This record gives sequence, C-alpha cells and structure tokens, in this order.
Amino acid sequence: MSYNLLKGKKGIIFGALDEKSIAWKTALRCYEEGAQLVLSNAPVALRMGEINKLAEAVQAPVIGADVVNMDDLKRLFEESMKHFNSGVDFVLHSIGMSLNVRKGKHYTEIDYGFNQKTLDISAMSLHRVLRTAWDMDAINEWGSVVALTYIAAQRVFPDYNEMADAKALLESVTRSFGYHYAVRKKVRINTVSQSPTRTTAGSGVKGFEGFISYAEKMSPLGNASGEDCANYCVTLFSDLTRMVTMQNLFHDGGFSFTGVTQTVIEQMEK
Amino acid sequence: MSYNLLKGKKGIIFGALDEKSIAWKTALRCYEEGAQLVLSNAPVALRMGEINKLAEAVQAPVIGADVVNMDDLKRLFEESMKHFNSGVDFVLHSIGMSLNVRKGKHYTEIDYGFNQKTLDISAMSLHRVLRTAWDMDAINEWGSVVALTYIAAQRVFPDYNEMADAKALLESVTRSFGYHYAVRKKVRINTVSQSPTRTTAGSGVKGFEGFISYAEKMSPLGNASGEDCANYCVTLFSDLTRMVTMQNLFHDGGFSFTGVTQTVIEQMEK
Amino acid sequence: MSYNLLKGKKGIIFGALDEKSIAWKTALRCYEEGAQLVLSNAPVALRMGEINKLAEAVQAPVIGADVVNMDDLKRLFEESMKHFNSGVDFVLHSIGMSLNVRKGKHYTEIDYGFNQKTLDISAMSLHRVLRTAWDMDAINEWGSVVALTYIAAQRVFPDYNEMADAKALLESVTRSFGYHYAVRKKVRINTVSQSPTRTTAGSGVKGFEGFISYAEKMSPLGNASGEDCANYCVTLFSDLTRMVTMQNLFHDGGFSFTGVTQTVIEQMEK
Amino acid sequence: MSYNLLKGKKGIIFGALDEKSIAWKTALRCYEEGAQLVLSNAPVALRMGEINKLAEAVQAPVIGADVVNMDDLKRLFEESMKHFNSGVDFVLHSIGMSLNVRKGKHYTEIDYGFNQKTLDISAMSLHRVLRTAWDMDAINEWGSVVALTYIAAQRVFPDYNEMADAKALLESVTRSFGYHYAVRKKVRINTVSQSPTRTTAGSGVKGFEGFISYAEKMSPLGNASGEDCANYCVTLFSDLTRMVTMQNLFHDGGFSFTGVTQTVIEQMEK
Repeated sequence: MSYNLLKGKKGIIFGALDEKSIAWKTALRCYEEGAQLVLSNAPVALRMGEINKLAEAVQAPVIGADVVNMDDLKRLFEESMKHFNSGVDFVLHSIGMSLNVRKGKHYTEIDYGFNQKTLDISAMSLHRVLRTAWDMDAINEWGSVVALTYIAAQRVFPDYNEMADAKALLESVTRSFGYHYAVRKKVRINTVSQSPTRTTAGSGVKGFEGFISYAEKMSPLGNASGEDCANYCVTLFSDLTRMVTMQNLFHDGGFSFTGVTQTVIEQMEK
Repeated sequence: MSYNLLKGKKGIIFGALDEKSIAWKTALRCYEEGAQLVLSNAPVALRMGEINKLAEAVQAPVIGADVVNMDDLKRLFEESMKHFNSGVDFVLHSIGMSLNVRKGKHYTEIDYGFNQKTLDISAMSLHRVLRTAWDMDAINEWGSVVALTYIAAQRVFPDYNEMADAKALLESVTRSFGYHYAVRKKVRINTVSQSPTRTTAGSGVKGFEGFISYAEKMSPLGNASGEDCANYCVTLFSDLTRMVTMQNLFHDGGFSFTGVTQTVIEQMEK
Repeated sequence: MSYNLLKGKKGIIFGALDEKSIAWKTALRCYEEGAQLVLSNAPVALRMGEINKLAEAVQAPVIGADVVNMDDLKRLFEESMKHFNSGVDFVLHSIGMSLNVRKGKHYTEIDYGFNQKTLDISAMSLHRVLRTAWDMDAINEWGSVVALTYIAAQRVFPDYNEMADAKALLESVTRSFGYHYAVRKKVRINTVSQSPTRTTAGSGVKGFEGFISYAEKMSPLGNASGEDCANYCVTLFSDLTRMVTMQNLFHDGGFSFTGVTQTVIEQMEK
Repeated sequence: MSYNLLKGKKGIIFGALDEKSIAWKTALRCYEEGAQLVLSNAPVALRMGEINKLAEAVQAPVIGADVVNMDDLKRLFEESMKHFNSGVDFVLHSIGMSLNVRKGKHYTEIDYGFNQKTLDISAMSLHRVLRTAWDMDAINEWGSVVALTYIAAQRVFPDYNEMADAKALLESVTRSFGYHYAVRKKVRINTVSQSPTRTTAGSGVKGFEGFISYAEKMSPLGNASGEDCANYCVTLFSDLTRMVTMQNLFHDGGFSFTGVTQTVIEQMEK
C-alpha cells in the first residue's frame, strides 16, 4: 500500500529501537510513502545494533545523537541536511526514559536527580531538537513535527509515574515552540497521544499488561496499534494537514472520550 | 494533485451550497482522490441550482433530503446504496441553520421555536443521519463520518449566538453515537473545528468580517481555508486514520491553543 | 454548622423533589447559612407533596413553575421578588428529564419528539430562566447561578443516553448566557459536575447501581455525596467566589482527572 | 468580614514576598477566617524583610526554606507541627521563578541550565513539599493544598515564556500527587489559575502591562484581583469543598471560556 503521500519529503526519525517501536514502524511507512529518511537514536541504543536492519530497509543513514547534547543535535542536523541536500520536512520525536520507573521507585518517592533526567530526555529534548533546527534554519517551510505522548498527561494512571509529568511538559513545549515556529516559518508541531502499545520501552512500565487489557476494553474501537500510529503520522507529515498545529491529537480508538464501556461495567460487576 | 487516497470509496456529502462551501471543496477533493460521491442538500438549497455544476464536475447524482425528515434520509441512503451498488464509506455533515441569527435576534432574546429548529437542523440532524444509516446498516465497516463545527462550542464568541449551543450539542452527539457505531461496526465519527471561513452561510453571522480578521491575527499559521479543510477531511476519510474517533479536531492554524499573539497585543496597544 | 456565608442573600432553588434530591439538601444548607429561599418545581412534582416538608423546614414559599413555560417563569420571579422584597442573589438549577430514558429507548433509537422535550426541559430551561430574570432585571449585581450537570457531557457513559447531549447543551448555555450576564450585571453562571448520586431521578437511569459503584472505585476520594454538593454550592453562592464564571466545576472526588485506579485495575484482573 | 470558615485550621503559606503578593493577601484572609499560620519563603526573599510585617499582622512565625532543599522542607514541617502542636490542614504554594525570563531570553534561546532551575523551583517544588509532608505524615486527613498557576499552561501567551511549561508541569504534579494523597489520606490538591495580577513577581514578565489590559478587556467580569483570589483560596481550604481534587480551577472573571469579547473586537477594528 502506497499513496506517495510523502514523495520528495525528507524526514528525521528519532527513537527506533527495535521492530516493535512505533518509530520503527513509522520509518517503514514513511519510506513506503516516498520519503527519504535519516534515523537517529541515543548512542547506547545504537549499540544494540537492531537499527541497522531498519536502516537497510529504508535506505537511510543512522546518525547517533544524545538528545540532551546540543553539539550532537547540531551535528545530526548538519549531516542530515548534507545527506538530503536540502532542509528537513518532518521530524518524529519518539523519545522517553525514566530511571525512576526503571528502578521501580513509587511516584511519592522518586529520586529528584533521576527526575531531572527524565524531564530533560523525555520532554525538554523536544525543545532542544527544535531549537537546534531553529538556529540552523533546518526545517523547510510547512514542515511538520510530531512527538509521541500519552493520555497520562491529562489524567492519572498511577503506574505511569513521573512519565505523566514529563508528557505534560512535552505537550506544553509542543504548544510553546509550535507558536513561534508557525509564526516564523509555517512549521507545525503536534503531539499524538497513542494507545498503550506493546513496545520494548512500554513493557518496562509496571502493571503494563493489566493496563493494556483495560485500555482495550475501554476503547470502543480497541487499542490503536503501532502500525495504525505509523499511518496516522504519515497523514500528519503530508501536505494534507498543513493547518493543524499546537494540538494534542488522540489516536486511541476512542479511549480518551469514553467514560466507561459496557464491557468494563460487566467486568466490574463480576 | 492526487494520491488516490480514497480510491474505491463511496461517500455522501451534505451541504454543498455553492463554490464557496467547504462541502463543495471537499467533494472536489474527494473526487480527485478517487472517491465516488452522492451529493445531498435541503430541497430549498437545491432550488438554487448551483449544485448541478458540482454534480457534473464530480460525476455524482444529487439527492435532495430534508435532514430532519426521516423518510427523506431513508430514501437518500437507499438511493445512494443503489447508486454505489454497495454500502457507504464516508459521510460529510456540513449543515447548520439558525433563524434567530438570520433575523438578528440577540442571544438573550432568541425565539424558542426558532431555537428548536436550530438544534434540530444543526445538531440532531447528525443523529438522524447516523440513525438512518444504523437502521439500514448502510455504512461499511471502518467507515468514517465527519461533521463540521466551530470553537464557539467551547468558548464564547458573542456574535455566534445560539449556533454555539447547537455546535456543542453536535459535538456531544458525535461522541455519543461515535461510541455505539465504533462498538458495533468499527465506524468512526469526528468533528472538525474549522477556522472561520468566508462561505455564503458564514457571512450571515453579524460582525463576521471583523471576526475573521481577528482570527487571522490570532492564528500562528493564519486561518485555515476551505481548501485546507477539504484536504484534512480527505485524510479523515482515508484508511490512514482508522483509530481516530469521538474527537473534536481543531483545524485552525493554531488558534485554539493560542492565548494571544504578538500581533493582537500590538493592535490592542494602538 | 453554620458560617453565615449567605446571610442576607435571597435564592431560588429549582428541583427539590424529595429528601434525596441535591436541591433539597442545598436548600437546607443555604437556609442554615442564612439565606432566604423560594422553592420551585414542576406542577407535577409538587403534587407529590413532599416539598412541603422542606418548605416548612426552610421557611420558604413553594411556587410552581413549568420551566418551559415563560409565563410561569415570569410569575415565579415576580412572586419571588415580592416575597424577598428585593432582587434575587442566587439560583440553583437542578432540572433534568428524559422520556427516552424513562421508556428505556436505546440511544440509537430515541424518539425525536421526546428528545426535543429532553433538550428543552433539561437544558434550554436554563436559558428560559435566565432570560426571564434578564428581562425583568431580577438578579442582583454579583448574583450567582449554578446548574447541576454530569461528566457524560464530556465523555460517553452509554447508559446516560441522550441526557449526555442535554448536559452538553446545558453547559454551553451556561457559557453563552454567562458571558452576557457578566458583562451586563456582574452575574456569574457555572455548572457543577457532580458524582453520580442516589437520587430518585438518578435511580431511573439503567445500570445505575453498577455505575455508581464503578465511579466510587474510580474516584480517589470516593463519590461526592449530595450533602457534599450542597456545601460546594454554598461556596459558589457566597461572596467568596465572585470571579468564577462560565466554568464547569467538577465535584467528584477526583473522578474526572483519574484515568484508572489501582482498585479498578485489580477488579479488571479478576 | 469574617465567617470563621477556617476556625481551628492550621496552614502553611509559601511565597508572600510583599503586600502585593497573592500569598500575602491569602495569609491575611486566612487569618481573618480563624486560621493559625506559618509563613515560609526562600531565604533570599526573607532578607527583604517585608514579610515580618505580615508575620506580625497574622501572628505567625516565619520559617525560611529553599523549596528545592529537602532538609529545609523537613525542618519547616517539623517546626510548623511543633508550633501548631498538630498536623497541617492546608498549604498554599505560590512559588515561581525563571532566570530565563529575568534575563530576557527569548523562548527559542533559553539557557537549559536556567530552565532546569525554573522547572525545579516553580513546579517540582510542589512535589518536594508534598513528598516531605507525605513522608512525615504531616498533613491532616481532609487537608487541602492549593498551588497558583496560569492559563499559559493550556494556551500560548508568548511573553510568558518557559513559565508556561513550568506551570503545565506544576498542574500535572498536582494531579499525580493528588491521586496518591487522596487515596491514602483524603488530602485534596488543586491549582487555581488566576487572572494576571500586578504582583512584584508578575511585573517582571515582559509586556506585562499590555497583557493585563488585554486580559481585562477579554474577561466578562474583568480581571480577578489578588483579594478575590485570597477569598477563593479560603473556600478551597474550608470544609465546604472537600470533594474537589486534582482540578485546575480557573479564577479569572470568565477569561478562560471567552473566545472574544465585544470590547476586543471593537479595539481590533480600530
């Protein structure tokens, strides 16, 4: 299936860890739709080596970058522009990391040093990426940036822990930077708030399986898959959505506007 | 420009009055993207005759229907399914009418008989359309329904008058029916909250020009045009957005999440 | 317990059916806080006779009014102002009725005649009350109007049926009229979105018990009771909340911003 | 004016800098309503000496604490509990600081070291305060915590700069910690989103005067004053609002749900 929706477009995809990653699937779909890509991830993630398979499949160079290191980001954009021989049309930010979650710290007893890293890597990294592009004028007019987020930014899901706060911060950065980039260069910036997805990263969250099954029961269309999300991102990178900006777009089978379903009520009555 | 995004899809477009209409532009774009169409509008609107130009351009039959008449709606779906020789894949609801606005009644002195008509035509008509399709099982699995709305459903724009309440009702019907249709048949239903647009209908609103210019100054990307909206609707009718349902999607150049712009502040300081 | 928060204030309470009613409890608390009251309800509800007990307890006249009858409303305000020998300081709108719910009609098969009555009685009645007061200049400067609503206006709870749409309309009327009344007379208008409450009216909703128990498990503080709601309304009628207007205020033990609780997850895993 | 709404309650007030501060006014009103207080602020703010006037007026000790220093916070709660001879019933968090704003850095060129301080002092400080209380079990059952915030957390006001992101983070911490504290101890945590207010801190924001006048014109009731905010906080600390938690409560004269006013449209047409 290809519509050539992204024909001639150049994009940077952050965060493809392995074939379960939404970023991985989005890279594949963007490539099918005619885009030319650069893949980036943290040096530590690159060492796993999986990304090379993807790089081959989508004919893209892999350029490592620590998203909290401004020199790395600058180099990434420089090399990308050289590779594309042009500016960048779209960016996918699929980046999140919480040492407090990894170490099993309860929200009420988080380590504040870890928390600072969580906020920097998972949220302020979007500011860092955009600001690097801004300084270099690296994103083309009518470019599109999408960052992946989760509904815990709006409502509490206890096991999501401090990542909820990080996602709220990420969504605010999206709006704030979105304003400036729209005014200056017609660049749009949005978040996609995706159903819980069985990725390698997602599985690290405590109680994830119970939660994914609850979300499935609570979504009139069921949970959106990673493939679905990739398709949706393609529309957001295309020229057909140019006037959508500073939005948080729920891509979740209806979960976000469902108070309760018949299925959940029945389960509760057991 | 065509991506064949809607190749093989069949859709009903309500509300194309003349070439300024968003529904008109959406019909053109859907046709370009490969869809087969039926056009519908109120008998009184059809009498203007403009729609025949569109019908010719998109090779579609015109089937009149009063959206508050259940027999009309049943006939519309029957004839459409006969024409398509299949069920319907998408529906655009671009319908609104307020006698109170037309007659220049202030919000605090509306006629309640007129108001009842406003709510019925502008909001409950969506329920009537969906319920007709539901009873006839007329929409195909993974079908997509979009209704056009306006941000006055969330925040007060005084001149928008009782249409604000009608749009709030429309958005609620979208969620309510969206739940049931998703559970039963994977059909998704969303509203698009569009920038103020210079249509023949829109121009009827008092103070419209002042308002459209305010919205332009208040939108980081500027106001979204009817053509932009048509493009966006195409993505929502396509297979790439299957898991988006029960949402109100702002298509407004960033207006909805902008508190104030530099341009507005400067104008205020004059 | 009395703080004299409403000392010297005059209020009209709509919708006290019996001692389980939130309006009943609010009347009692307003009286304790020093307010002078008029009680109103539909003629058919008055015939039950229960309200006379309340009238005695709070030393208030009972004035019947069909809220969709403008003459009734005019008479109500006239008699109230005569009784108070002054304008009105606050109004509680606790009114809702759905024949479709009563008759067990599924949302996808509602009777549109009944629906029109539901919208008129449950939502547009607020406009009718406010407009009557507006025309007569019956509400004092810095007056406060509260209407009771439910979160189904924002998210789908299938059994709540068409009342969800009615509440969405009610909340929009609150904003729309709230704007005008604030500008003209500093009157504020808000909705309180209350936990599901075991009232005689609420019990009519299908699956109510299952739902109230779900809401209890889903609210970090548990469901708010009718007494709690009465207390909250007292603060909104007092002089301490003068600048709060056009808001929908959740009074629900945290339900509205909770995505899931540990208790619900555990129940789901059974 | 006193209703004894807070009779017998003990509260800690953070952030009273001088008599223009909302925290200052809230302390005065809480004292009038019968509360016993402890005042706290950063050591550097205390050195100004103004707070001693307030301390005298409300008969409260001043206990300095750097809100990002866990030892300081622990000592503050220990000394407060000793002073009260009991646990704490309410807390006001009125704390915000941005070096990037002070130094006039544009949002697109913020210093990330400064930004980390902004987030820590303006948002994570609420987590630190709550977590200190949580570890010491310092807040009584049904206690109430209020943090002041601003609507820039939801919509972009360009001059508010990185403080918008900090407030979004603050509001998320409110929800996240609010969940846990409700479940464990019935403690409620909310933010109040206040109109722009002429405080010494607020005045530091670039373009503040232009903005405050815009907000005045855009608010149907006008801007809420610091005194109004103090009154509102009193209701939130009282026993009448026990079931309100995890909410962001707009206290802004209707600004948040107003899309445009007649006054603004007229100004725009000049």
